[in-house]
Amino acid sequence: MSGEQKGALMYRLAEKLFPICRSITGDGVRESLSIIQEYIPLEIHEVPSGTAVFDWTVPPEWNIRDAWVKGPDGKKIIDFKANNLHILQYSTPIHQILELEDLKKHLFTLPDQPDLIPYRTSYYQQNWGFCLAYRELQRLPEGQYEVYIDASLEEGHLTYGELYLPGESTNEVLLSAHICHPALANDNLSGISVLTFLAQWLLGQKNRYSYRFLFIPGTIGSITWLALNEPKVQNIQHGLVASLLGDAGGFTYKRSRRGDAEIDKVAEYVLKHSGQPYQVFDFFPYGYDERQFCSPGFNLPVGNLTRSSFGTYPEYHTSGDNLQFIQDKYLAESLDIYQQIITILEHNVYCQNLNPKCEPQLGKRGLYDAIGGDSDQKKLQMAMLWVLNFSDGTMSLLDIAERAKLPFNLILKTSKLLIKYELLV
Amino acid sequence: MSGEQKGALMYRLAEKLFPICRSITGDGVRESLSIIQEYIPLEIHEVPSGTAVFDWTVPPEWNIRDAWVKGPDGKKIIDFKANNLHILQYSTPIHQILELEDLKKHLFTLPDQPDLIPYRTSYYQQNWGFCLAYRELQRLPEGQYEVYIDASLEEGHLTYGELYLPGESTNEVLLSAHICHPALANDNLSGISVLTFLAQWLLGQKNRYSYRFLFIPGTIGSITWLALNEPKVQNIQHGLVASLLGDAGGFTYKRSRRGDAEIDKVAEYVLKHSGQPYQVFDFFPYGYDERQFCSPGFNLPVGNLTRSSFGTYPEYHTSGDNLQFIQDKYLAESLDIYQQIITILEHNVYCQNLNPKCEPQLGKRGLYDAIGGDSDQKKLQMAMLWVLNFSDGTMSLLDIAERAKLPFNLILKTSKLLIKYELLV
Amino acid sequence: MSGEQKGALMYRLAEKLFPICRSITGDGVRESLSIIQEYIPLEIHEVPSGTAVFDWTVPPEWNIRDAWVKGPDGKKIIDFKANNLHILQYSTPIHQILELEDLKKHLFTLPDQPDLIPYRTSYYQQNWGFCLAYRELQRLPEGQYEVYIDASLEEGHLTYGELYLPGESTNEVLLSAHICHPALANDNLSGISVLTFLAQWLLGQKNRYSYRFLFIPGTIGSITWLALNEPKVQNIQHGLVASLLGDAGGFTYKRSRRGDAEIDKVAEYVLKHSGQPYQVFDFFPYGYDERQFCSPGFNLPVGNLTRSSFGTYPEYHTSGDNLQFIQDKYLAESLDIYQQIITILEHNVYCQNLNPKCEPQLGKRGLYDAIGGDSDQKKLQMAMLWVLNFSDGTMSLLDIAERAKLPFNLILKTSKLLIKYELLV
Repeated sequence: MSGEQKGALMYRLAEKLFPICRSITGDGVRESLSIIQEYIPLEIHEVPSGTAVFDWTVPPEWNIRDAWVKGPDGKKIIDFKANNLHILQYSTPIHQILELEDLKKHLFTLPDQPDLIPYRTSYYQQNWGFCLAYRELQRLPEGQYEVYIDASLEEGHLTYGELYLPGESTNEVLLSAHICHPALANDNLSGISVLTFLAQWLLGQKNRYSYRFLFIPGTIGSITWLALNEPKVQNIQHGLVASLLGDAGGFTYKRSRRGDAEIDKVAEYVLKHSGQPYQVFDFFPYGYDERQFCSPGFNLPVGNLTRSSFGTYPEYHTSGDNLQFIQDKYLAESLDIYQQIITILEHNVYCQNLNPKCEPQLGKRGLYDAIGGDSDQKKLQMAMLWVLNFSDGTMSLLDIAERAKLPFNLILKTSKLLIKYELLV
Repeated sequence: MSGEQKGALMYRLAEKLFPICRSITGDGVRESLSIIQEYIPLEIHEVPSGTAVFDWTVPPEWNIRDAWVKGPDGKKIIDFKANNLHILQYSTPIHQILELEDLKKHLFTLPDQPDLIPYRTSYYQQNWGFCLAYRELQRLPEGQYEVYIDASLEEGHLTYGELYLPGESTNEVLLSAHICHPALANDNLSGISVLTFLAQWLLGQKNRYSYRFLFIPGTIGSITWLALNEPKVQNIQHGLVASLLGDAGGFTYKRSRRGDAEIDKVAEYVLKHSGQPYQVFDFFPYGYDERQFCSPGFNLPVGNLTRSSFGTYPEYHTSGDNLQFIQDKYLAESLDIYQQIITILEHNVYCQNLNPKCEPQLGKRGLYDAIGGDSDQKKLQMAMLWVLNFSDGTMSLLDIAERAKLPFNLILKTSKLLIKYELLV
Repeated sequence: MSGEQKGALMYRLAEKLFPICRSITGDGVRESLSIIQEYIPLEIHEVPSGTAVFDWTVPPEWNIRDAWVKGPDGKKIIDFKANNLHILQYSTPIHQILELEDLKKHLFTLPDQPDLIPYRTSYYQQNWGFCLAYRELQRLPEGQYEVYIDASLEEGHLTYGELYLPGESTNEVLLSAHICHPALANDNLSGISVLTFLAQWLLGQKNRYSYRFLFIPGTIGSITWLALNEPKVQNIQHGLVASLLGDAGGFTYKRSRRGDAEIDKVAEYVLKHSGQPYQVFDFFPYGYDERQFCSPGFNLPVGNLTRSSFGTYPEYHTSGDNLQFIQDKYLAESLDIYQQIITILEHNVYCQNLNPKCEPQLGKRGLYDAIGGDSDQKKLQMAMLWVLNFSDGTMSLLDIAERAKLPFNLILKTSKLLIKYELLV
């Protein structure tokens, strides 16, 4: 499949998910996960409200059916069905008549971006509210408003999806995306789409590592997974948190808290050689679920790879982050970068030279030019010498590639050749 | 008290000490220390001449009452009473008539700075001599000169002052100034004044660390203290040698021999954020008493914080380093920098996050905004995340402040808040 | 002897060796070594063909007496006796009439450098051939050619020269040059000449280290020596591979695989202070015999010090690398640099301050100015303070010189003075 075709499929998944009102719990999450299940065999987990997860408690489940505000003239002036960003997430049910002044305490806008609806939540403090464009707010006449929210907030479950792909080794790579945002395309759907198609790709091949995909609500989802799966954490050798992968911006890699983990080296290597603009940051303790994976008690080698950086583009957490904001080709490019990283992780082994004392005689194995003296050094022969000299068990193939300033693929091909000739293990 | 008032008091102390002829022993030291005792409860130690202190011996005590040279016309042409720099320190008594040629062997001048009297000493080799301006030397006519030095060099004591302020911990901070220079204002009195007022300030507050102030003769004083107090050395966690703190120059920090001691990080942090020009040097084995504190057998975490650097200004060790060379405001500024350093040392603890697995739920404690989704990150919330994530026992609050690029005071305030909420110890 | 006279002698040795047809085995090597024996008492080793040396086998011995090609007109158009580069090294004997087309399969030229004869070998794959200028090749008319090679390739020996100079310690310095190239002046004879005269110089003095000189065929020679002398390897503390030392280029130092070995620091120090242009590279696994000495199973602290770098000048491995390409003065300069490096290695000890607690009293030993207070710090006194403060057993004299930014010779002289005064061991 061409990158273009792949991009179109990835975009199509985002389109299907966009209208659903997701939150950190509820039927919107279930519906979204069941759509993803059309692509990959996701396992769905339900964790009861009230479950203690470290310092937190799984919250009540929230479901919303309808919500609107009618103006003094009886016409709907805010309608959840038009855009699910209009509702303050976790709003409690209400049906009441209010004066404009009282209503305004429950309205959220962006005066600096007067045409955009903000995305707002109140998960852990009971409240109700509506989000709307500042320009709409300004137009509201004095008078009485009818407010209606048909929602429920009650004991239920936190729902998340998990896909575990066993590989040759129980050592695993963790790939995580948040699924708790409603109609936000880049900040949610792009990550979901990239990980869904990445999982499809891995399903089609034999892997050295095992892979664990998590489609979870942000923060409470990763905390819940970590709390309920602590014994599995020790298997996580590498990880990436995926989000913001459909916009036109260059790539942004945020290192794991360790800063020098293999995933950090590999991600930077791939970006450096991608020909794309990119930036790299040291770990900072806010952003996405890497906050939890990299908390000091876990300190996992998990980075965060996005295009535009968290919170830095004007459409971030507004109705501007819609399906027009993301594009096929950017999704496909992002998937390609994730695949490249996985490919290097899969092959980045630590070899051992079986003839560590002096060079082995490559010529008698047909691995070296018969006629000596020519000063034009051949790339493959050079690569053999690099791999042999530095494969002492302390340097990975990527480390050797970086030291030799040779492409990883050449070093990899060379190592395979040397393994075939029993010069390397 | 304003910085201006404080500066005036600091300058006044220097003024009182300036006329006294100090040396490495003798009544000039005693008189100086008794003036300092008017400000802080200094304990006076007397160590007998002849006491062995490592490779050295406490020298005989030197006292001088009068000294002059009369010219061929019987008039005093050099008079110790006019400026106590005129006498070569540790000159032996003499009363003799000499030809100019013979006298000249005992005269010290600065041909390159013809109007200044140099400061010269001969502690460990018996000699006598006078220091004078080169221009005066040139004016001396041939003829016979009467030389008179009324001094004594005999068994006595080395005198030094010590102030120990017990804190919550027996771990201590060492603060040392030399008190052996006669009429030199910056190179002696400025350091004495800063440490005197620093001690006053510490006396007025409860401290975590214990503090030890030493007012000692240079070199032999620190060697004597170290030799006689070796068991106490292990308590020294941080230290600064104070001198050259009243001139108009920017600050100069010379690192401890270790180079990465906490005092080195704190001093550099304070200077970096002081808005003042400053320079930082690695340790070098000449200068002031840090030479002894940082000798390889002790290797204490002791730096040297001055304004102009040792030996680099033209007035250094001459009559140009007088009361006009130092100013109230520079003394007050220097005291302020020392206080800032002490304040950070006092509060720069290594905390431990009590919920290291995932973030604690700040919201349920009222520590986090109720309405989520807003991308405008608040400074205090950010600081909480930084402190929580990096308080794993290996990073001090200052380390976290530097990593987070946030002010130390914000990090400190945050740590106190988190401790109050039992999230940190 | 002046550098000029020394350079002339060094050049003279190269001149004597130039006409001899050396290879990795054979009488050319023996004849060359016996000429070197006129200068230094080299021991000659003979290792039988067929001896297993790690992954390699000592090859048959090759000797050549005559070789030529006669054109259709019966005239010699290629004559080994005119230039021994004409023969493909390790050519098997032949006497045959061939068409030009068949002959061409055995002719080697350099189309990009049409006037130069290339240097080519076929040690490990039986073949025969001639090397000639591309312009000559183009002139060859169609017709029948008579080819004659009077050579033998049979069981014999690999020959190398070794000189071991015992010093005070069994710790040794390895110095190695390859001797397997025929008429190539810079890439062979310059290294031989520098090491020969370096050995002469060391023979004339008492040394702390033992020295081992190897005059060996490239690759197979170092592999053979390492395989047969493995127990001696542990004594090698430092080493240099010598070659390309007679051309006009600046110096090139290639670090040992360790990268921070003492030899690396010393070589860089000498080059930095040489006033000569130079470059330094990290280890890479091709070049000369450092490939073997630095193979991961040995990882010896052996660098490679040349003038122009391996393979980078147009005359490399061609008839352009002849006696006109090297000069007396460059040979003498190279020897001087090697001698400087050896001199520092000989004296670069780790001292221990015998009075580590505070400074010793230098004045009472006459090591410090009697008159104090003068701010003009004397270099020797400074050097004493540096050596005393940093001689804690972890820093060599060179480390101290670098830290103090003082000349090594001053630090060395100072350490000797302090040792004499029993302040240092």
